[in-house]
Amino acid sequence: MAYLNDNYLKLKSGYLFPEIGRRVSAFCEKDPAAAKRLIRCGIGDVTEPLPQAVITAMHKAVDEMARRETFRGYGPEQGYEFIRQAIAQNDYRDRGLEIADDEIFLSDGSKCDCGHILDILGHQNKIAMMDPVYPVYVDTNVMAGHTGPADESGAYAGLTYLPCTAENGFVPDIPMEKVDIVYFCYPNNPTGAVPAREQLTNWVNYALQNKAVLLYDAAYEAYITEPGVPRSIYEIPGARECAIEFRSFSKHGGFTGLRCAFTVLPKSLLASTADGKSTSLHPLWQRRWSTKSNGVSYPVQRAAEALYTAEGKAQVRDLIQHYMGNARILRKGVQAAGLKVFGGVNAPYIWVQAPSGVTSWQIFDRLLSEANVVITPGSGFGRYGEGYFRISAFNSRANAEEVARRLQTLKW
Amino acid sequence: MAYLNDNYLKLKSGYLFPEIGRRVSAFCEKDPAAAKRLIRCGIGDVTEPLPQAVITAMHKAVDEMARRETFRGYGPEQGYEFIRQAIAQNDYRDRGLEIADDEIFLSDGSKCDCGHILDILGHQNKIAMMDPVYPVYVDTNVMAGHTGPADESGAYAGLTYLPCTAENGFVPDIPMEKVDIVYFCYPNNPTGAVPAREQLTNWVNYALQNKAVLLYDAAYEAYITEPGVPRSIYEIPGARECAIEFRSFSKHGGFTGLRCAFTVLPKSLLASTADGKSTSLHPLWQRRWSTKSNGVSYPVQRAAEALYTAEGKAQVRDLIQHYMGNARILRKGVQAAGLKVFGGVNAPYIWVQAPSGVTSWQIFDRLLSEANVVITPGSGFGRYGEGYFRISAFNSRANAEEVARRLQTLKW
Repeated sequence: MAYLNDNYLKLKSGYLFPEIGRRVSAFCEKDPAAAKRLIRCGIGDVTEPLPQAVITAMHKAVDEMARRETFRGYGPEQGYEFIRQAIAQNDYRDRGLEIADDEIFLSDGSKCDCGHILDILGHQNKIAMMDPVYPVYVDTNVMAGHTGPADESGAYAGLTYLPCTAENGFVPDIPMEKVDIVYFCYPNNPTGAVPAREQLTNWVNYALQNKAVLLYDAAYEAYITEPGVPRSIYEIPGARECAIEFRSFSKHGGFTGLRCAFTVLPKSLLASTADGKSTSLHPLWQRRWSTKSNGVSYPVQRAAEALYTAEGKAQVRDLIQHYMGNARILRKGVQAAGLKVFGGVNAPYIWVQAPSGVTSWQIFDRLLSEANVVITPGSGFGRYGEGYFRISAFNSRANAEEVARRLQTLKW
Repeated sequence: MAYLNDNYLKLKSGYLFPEIGRRVSAFCEKDPAAAKRLIRCGIGDVTEPLPQAVITAMHKAVDEMARRETFRGYGPEQGYEFIRQAIAQNDYRDRGLEIADDEIFLSDGSKCDCGHILDILGHQNKIAMMDPVYPVYVDTNVMAGHTGPADESGAYAGLTYLPCTAENGFVPDIPMEKVDIVYFCYPNNPTGAVPAREQLTNWVNYALQNKAVLLYDAAYEAYITEPGVPRSIYEIPGARECAIEFRSFSKHGGFTGLRCAFTVLPKSLLASTADGKSTSLHPLWQRRWSTKSNGVSYPVQRAAEALYTAEGKAQVRDLIQHYMGNARILRKGVQAAGLKVFGGVNAPYIWVQAPSGVTSWQIFDRLLSEANVVITPGSGFGRYGEGYFRISAFNSRANAEEVARRLQTLKW
């Protein structure tokens, strides 16, 4: 008799964004007039077209695939040398961070990477993660059997949740109990927070002392506007010995529909075998890619490479400025509405405290029906997200202005 | 202390194709003159450019991504409706097989799918697989902890190997012991064999009786030339209740560099929870995709769609005819050299028996140094591949002819 993976049955009913999709569809069916006014600030999906440098590079790559002499079949599973080199040079070495080309692993998305990284880690690890946080970290651990069932609040037994609150500036304190793997996401989704260098240093030191591994999701790195904010975990001394970094072209180059991202796994990062021998994780990750993938679509790799040209960099800067302009408008709108606001300065997300006593899903439903604005309920990101909601700045300027206006017309 | 996944340490030194790559590189460095004569018939990678219909569709999709009104960000994780519908209609319903659009799950490769399918299956399953076989099935089970260590022949404890030999026509007999999951690959990589309808029917009946699940890799379906050979496991009554099918555009449309494939998971396929309750696997696979992926690159989905147009179908037919023309030439060459040959009629692979007493890697080295031809050693596919080698028909016509000629110049 074939058995299924029972851990899947522990998962709470819906992944957050499909659940939002269902509620929005139901609303639109019921009220087609209001549906026309709908502005979506829920899922963090980019809205602006791809940079022209990317378009040009993709057309060129597609034409290469049309001629026998330039056609490319299977590429290296971990990515072509040209893109691994461009990433390591531009994102790391040019910033004084020692990352070798073969420490870059190209993939089709950070969401995938965050799930797949568990492939090479042992089941006996004690897992910690920020709360609230991107739900994929939690759900992939549930699927892998690293948790017990969820309680009523949606928290799973066996995971260590690290509360991120207004009080600690949404940067978690070091836990009392020892943990082996810690998920971080900075600039943070959903709170928009960034850590001070000193806070990250404390965490790196904790990891080094406890031989823990930090999984550092920096998918929103491009949105950092304040000087001095760490753009990579490797800016912190010792991180090459304890951290894996995740980066994405999704929000950086507008690649949510093209699919390209990467992990950085330094060769100096060790983990322990079951019998206590320390060994590098790098060959395991290398092997995982060789065995379970054939790499990223070639034209997409050329598209990503184009982001590192002078033209591409300028176009990415324009894109980010557009979205961060929206973020400023939305922040002001929320403040003018009298609500408490966080984020939106180094991240494209505005994190808003709902009026006292109002739950996240209540405010979701109210904003949907009264303002025809879709946001993301904070409780969808974890217990400590309850009472908050997230507004995404990924939109047209006109929509951002309209949302800011509508928020101020509601009686709070 | 962070622990790694010890199962990775059980893996034999190299995945087959990187090992071939290493030997070929060493040879080319040592003998640059011979390197210039080298013809690669090792890895089964396509050599001909993409069909023109695909090129046109990709350019159009790239242009859509350049304009705000037609730009697409995140798509459905399981694939856009347009491609799921095209697949289900053309590959199944038009052939009288009842497969719904939402039973198709688009991915970036069959290699990935074969690994990822284990995500939704329980660790307590007894796993069986053909031998010789595509190494990814074995290796991903090792990584998932479904085996003990390997013995000297490379066979892993805990797996049930189903010998595929010249005697049984490379279609395995039903095993004496009960198994829960069985991997099949037809047309077979590496032997090029296809099963008779009756043989597949026996296996489907076995699966139904034992509530086993068949994992049916039909990546080479397009190469079937003989009438009556089953093109899909769903041609066998009852397969909707016991089989998952894997298909790929890699060899079909020449997509090894573009990356697109799919699984078919019928909603009527049940598996058991740990406590013996039968339930559909479909929602688990659906959830896996929602949580661990953001789907396939949009232009690639449009490229795949183009394979189903009248123009695309005709161009695919030409591609297949080209490669199967090579297969005929290679078969004849091997026969003329006095070697025993299998496959190459319904598959782009020719499976050759080495002269008595010669091992697969010995013949690999000999063909490399004396004929400057790269083949794949049969033992790389499993114990029962020892004494055989695989010649890939993916090449130019001139190269296929030259390989056939060189084989005949060697003294066997």
